Amino acid sequence: MNKPIIGFIGLGIMGKPMARNLLKAGYSLIVHNRSRASVDELSKEGAQTAASSQEVAARSEVVITMLPDSPDVELVYSGEQGVFAGAKPGILLIDMSSISPVVSRRLAAEAEKRGCDMVDAPVSGGEAGAINAALSIMIGGKPSAVERAMPIFQVLGKNIVHVGDAGAGQVTKAANQMVVGTTIAIVSEALVLAAKAGVDPAKVRQALLGGFAQSKILEAHGQKMLERNFKPGFRIRLHEKDMKIALATGAEYGVPLMVTSQVAQMMTAMRSMGNGELDHAGLVALVEQLSKTELSKSKAT
Amino acid sequence: MNKPIIGFIGLGIMGKPMARNLLKAGYSLIVHNRSRASVDELSKEGAQTAASSQEVAARSEVVITMLPDSPDVELVYSGEQGVFAGAKPGILLIDMSSISPVVSRRLAAEAEKRGCDMVDAPVSGGEAGAINAALSIMIGGKPSAVERAMPIFQVLGKNIVHVGDAGAGQVTKAANQMVVGTTIAIVSEALVLAAKAGVDPAKVRQALLGGFAQSKILEAHGQKMLERNFKPGFRIRLHEKDMKIALATGAEYGVPLMVTSQVAQMMTAMRSMGNGELDHAGLVALVEQLSKTELSKSKAT
Repeated sequence: MNKPIIGFIGLGIMGKPMARNLLKAGYSLIVHNRSRASVDELSKEGAQTAASSQEVAARSEVVITMLPDSPDVELVYSGEQGVFAGAKPGILLIDMSSISPVVSRRLAAEAEKRGCDMVDAPVSGGEAGAINAALSIMIGGKPSAVERAMPIFQVLGKNIVHVGDAGAGQVTKAANQMVVGTTIAIVSEALVLAAKAGVDPAKVRQALLGGFAQSKILEAHGQKMLERNFKPGFRIRLHEKDMKIALATGAEYGVPLMVTSQVAQMMTAMRSMGNGELDHAGLVALVEQLSKTELSKSKAT
Repeated sequence: MNKPIIGFIGLGIMGKPMARNLLKAGYSLIVHNRSRASVDELSKEGAQTAASSQEVAARSEVVITMLPDSPDVELVYSGEQGVFAGAKPGILLIDMSSISPVVSRRLAAEAEKRGCDMVDAPVSGGEAGAINAALSIMIGGKPSAVERAMPIFQVLGKNIVHVGDAGAGQVTKAANQMVVGTTIAIVSEALVLAAKAGVDPAKVRQALLGGFAQSKILEAHGQKMLERNFKPGFRIRLHEKDMKIALATGAEYGVPLMVTSQVAQMMTAMRSMGNGELDHAGLVALVEQLSKTELSKSKAT
């Protein structure tokens, strides 16, 4: 099997370890990043470098982007010296950022016009998932393009699902973040209520895990809440961004998202109160603060 | 082992099969119910009957109550011809209804004053759990009382957790219902958003089950939503009642429950729109209706 040359744009908390895993798997990498430090680091590990997104695209058979938000992705693809300016027909473009499905679909249409394949493939699993090549990857795109991308995804992740056409990955990611964020919020309310009503929240968590209230969040994030371990993980500030993407997607397609909206507001409050850099399990601190109590001080029973 | 004589008050959808399981396990039962049909039915199966809650208590060593709501329980215990009027000191009182923790604690204090043991032991698992003796039971009460009740619980359920002192079972049940109801609501929003954005909601459910969005609700109720199977199960109308208990408990103990509140409003809407008798998974129909779409019509990809 011939490994294509991969251009990798965006070497942040997620992008850098993902690029490193591709290097380790034997891919030739051409990297580009807004700030220089990560580029130098990966260059020492064997990656080539390029001065612009345009140059990355011109020299690569596959381009992967891993960027913070929709405007960043739009700029990197459609801007002057962007990917589209350098991309030859036939190139495979993979955006692994978590962005608006609407933007994602617009870019995929633009790519198709230029004779390029484009796939949206946002991930979940956080920094640890990126480092350990254990990311969940949610893919939107036409089957032939997804098939081309699959060997690359298998280097980066474990739970890899092709959900549908262009944008379907982003829609799935938005749905995922809605469910994860809201489950964190309601577990917060439930445990704080228990504590303030004089019941040991650890025992409530244990009891709830045995029935229909069971969730991965109650298990993992519920435990973090009890330990007051809010080291990220996944930052509230970034989850807030994802909730806004979900709300904008709901507005675009005409779906009122009342619960999502409520939880997004709670995340905004956390950011305003200076807690945006906490792990999203830290949302419990908002409910604690509004109740003037702390889970850890309530080994009531 | 000497099996105590059990008085059983409240032979509804849940109470009747629970009483039947106790009969089958060899307990002597004295039953009482507001409407006559269930009493006659269980009488044919070997139960004795009594004309009032007072008489049930006077003739029993253990009294179990399984009633719809807090006022019903207050009336059955504290009313004229109620349990307290007939209970001898030393009797064990077990309230398995889902009611306000505040009411539950008041009754437990009253029981203690009269030299009776009282335990709150609400359940989850619905009618099927009651029939199959597979209920989850959340218990509040002092250890010696809970120990007395344990052989009875083992006949009725499977996941049996002693959470704390009097009222702790009700607090745990409230926490459980908050988490279950809200998870149903957010899974509804997520699947409807996916469908209306042109992505197959069945595939989104499948993708989300592999990551942090996983929950028993996404698994079981998510599937019901896709099949539009809203046969109860657990009725929205009753879940709405439980959400109100949670909100009242939050108000009593000073915990603002913003997400719980939002979901309770959605359940109220469903009841007002004539859908209160649907299974709580039917909450998805509200989001569908507000979006003018249907999950089942969107095998988009």
